[in-house]
Amino acid sequence: MTFIQMLNAAWRRTGSMLCVGLDPEPARFPPPLAGRADAIFEFCRAIVDATAPYACAFKPQIAYFSAYRAEAQLEALIAYIHAQYPGIPVVLDAKRGDIGSTAALYAREAFERYRADALTVNPYLGGDSIVPYFAYSDKGVIVLCRTSNAGGAEVQLQRVGDACLYQIIARRAVEQWNTNGQLGLVVGATFPAEIAAVRRIAGDEVPLLVPGVGVQGGEIGAAVQVGRTRQGAGLLINVSRAVLYAGNGADFALAAARTAQRMRDAINIYRGFSCLN
Amino acid sequence: MTFIQMLNAAWRRTGSMLCVGLDPEPARFPPPLAGRADAIFEFCRAIVDATAPYACAFKPQIAYFSAYRAEAQLEALIAYIHAQYPGIPVVLDAKRGDIGSTAALYAREAFERYRADALTVNPYLGGDSIVPYFAYSDKGVIVLCRTSNAGGAEVQLQRVGDACLYQIIARRAVEQWNTNGQLGLVVGATFPAEIAAVRRIAGDEVPLLVPGVGVQGGEIGAAVQVGRTRQGAGLLINVSRAVLYAGNGADFALAAARTAQRMRDAINIYRGFSCLN
Repeated sequence: MTFIQMLNAAWRRTGSMLCVGLDPEPARFPPPLAGRADAIFEFCRAIVDATAPYACAFKPQIAYFSAYRAEAQLEALIAYIHAQYPGIPVVLDAKRGDIGSTAALYAREAFERYRADALTVNPYLGGDSIVPYFAYSDKGVIVLCRTSNAGGAEVQLQRVGDACLYQIIARRAVEQWNTNGQLGLVVGATFPAEIAAVRRIAGDEVPLLVPGVGVQGGEIGAAVQVGRTRQGAGLLINVSRAVLYAGNGADFALAAARTAQRMRDAINIYRGFSCLN
Repeated sequence: MTFIQMLNAAWRRTGSMLCVGLDPEPARFPPPLAGRADAIFEFCRAIVDATAPYACAFKPQIAYFSAYRAEAQLEALIAYIHAQYPGIPVVLDAKRGDIGSTAALYAREAFERYRADALTVNPYLGGDSIVPYFAYSDKGVIVLCRTSNAGGAEVQLQRVGDACLYQIIARRAVEQWNTNGQLGLVVGATFPAEIAAVRRIAGDEVPLLVPGVGVQGGEIGAAVQVGRTRQGAGLLINVSRAVLYAGNGADFALAAARTAQRMRDAINIYRGFSCLN
C-alpha cells in the first residue's frame, strides 16, 4: 500500500483530516516526565495514544529529536505508531534538500532507518534533488511550496512572469516531478488565498499538508474551505504545539485529546460546506 | 574568535583554499576498515590526518552519518578535528531550512551538539528562518545560493525582474540578512559565470563555499579566477569524493593526501592570476 492509498484510507476510516505534529520540547514537559532519560519518547507516546482516535496522521519534526541526541527515541516512536496504530501514516518533517547523491542518503535515513511513510523536502535545488526519494515507490514526498512563516514571502512570493515563485514550484512539482503519484505539497494555513491557488494547480489527487494552525495563527475554517478537494478531503491540517501543550499538568494527555477532538470537529464543520464550490 | 576570523586566519596560515568534504560511504571503504563498528569515524579520521596539511577547512555532510545511525561518530569526528587541528574550521553541511522555532533547534544541534563552526542553510523559507542561527554570534551561516547540480537551474534561474532568483537571494542575504557579518554563500563550481555574479553582489567580505569540483565536473581554474576576492582569497573550494576515494587500498590516506595537495596547488595557481581583475 502506498502512502497516498494509506492516507486516503485513513481519511475515510478516521473521519479526520487532523495531523498531529510531534514537536517535543523537554522544557515544557509535565512534572511526571521531567528528568527521565526516555522523556521525549514517553511524552510523544502519551500524546499519540491520546490523540490517535482523532488523527489521520502523525508528523514528528526531526529537529526536536536531533537537537537532544534523541534519534533512538524517534526510531522507537515511529515503530510504536506503526505497531499500535497501523494504517495511520507517519510524515517525517525534515525538509531535506540536497544534490542527488546526498538525497539518496536522506531517503535511506527517512524510509529505511526511521521507517517514515512520507518525508517533507525543500524544492530549492530543483527536480533532480527530489527524484531520489521516488525510488521508494510506496513512500510520499511532500514538497515545500508556500510555508507558514512570515519570511517565506521574501522568496516564495517573488514574481516570475505572471506568477509567484510558489506557484511555479507547485506547477513543476505536480506536472513534471510527480511521475509516480507520490507527491504532496506544503501550504501554510496562514495564507488561505495561496492554499486556494495551490489547490487549483494541484487538482484533487495531490494531498496538501497545511501547517500553521493554532499557535502560528492560521484559521482552520478558511484553510479547509479553500484547500479541500471536491470530495471534501485532500488535507493534512497539522497542529503541533496547540495540541501537545494544551495542558501542562499530570492530565496533559487528556488535555491534548480534548484539543485534538475539538480541532478534528472544527475541520469537519468546514469540509462539508459547499457554498464555495 | 568568530568563524569568519578563524577562516581568514586559516587561509593565511595554511596557504590553502581547499575545503575537504567528508562524505563517508561505507561501501567504498578500503579493506582494513570494512566491518568495523567505528569504520565511519576511522575512515574520516585517516582522511583528516592525511589532508589537514593541505586544507583550510573540513566539511562533513550530515546525511552520510545519519543514514547509518552514526551521529556519535560525527560528534567524535568534529571533536577530533577541534582537538588535533585547532584553528581549522568545521562546516557542517546540513542545508537546514525551517520556521524560526524549529531553526532554533537545528542551530542547537549544529552548534551545541556537534560544535560545528559553521552550518549550511537553505534560503527558501526567507530571512526569518535564518535569523535564529545568528544567535550564535561566533558561528558562520552559509546560505545556498546557486547549487552545483543541474536541476538547480529549474528554481535558481527563474527570472525575477531583471535578475535570476539566485541573485535575488544573494542580494537579500548580503544586504538584509547578514546583520552581524556571519554569512557566507554557496555557489557551485559547475557555473563559473554565476560565481562571478555572486562575487560581484557579495563584495570581498563574504566567503563563498564552492562545491562541485572533481566528480561533479567543475573546473578549479575558472572557479578560482572569478570567485576569489581582490586579495586572492575568499573561497572554500570543496572537494569530497575525488579526495576521499583517490585510492581504494591500504594506502587510501596517502592517495587522499596527494590529491589534496594537488588540488591545493591547482587552486593556488589561479588565485594569483591578475589578468581578470
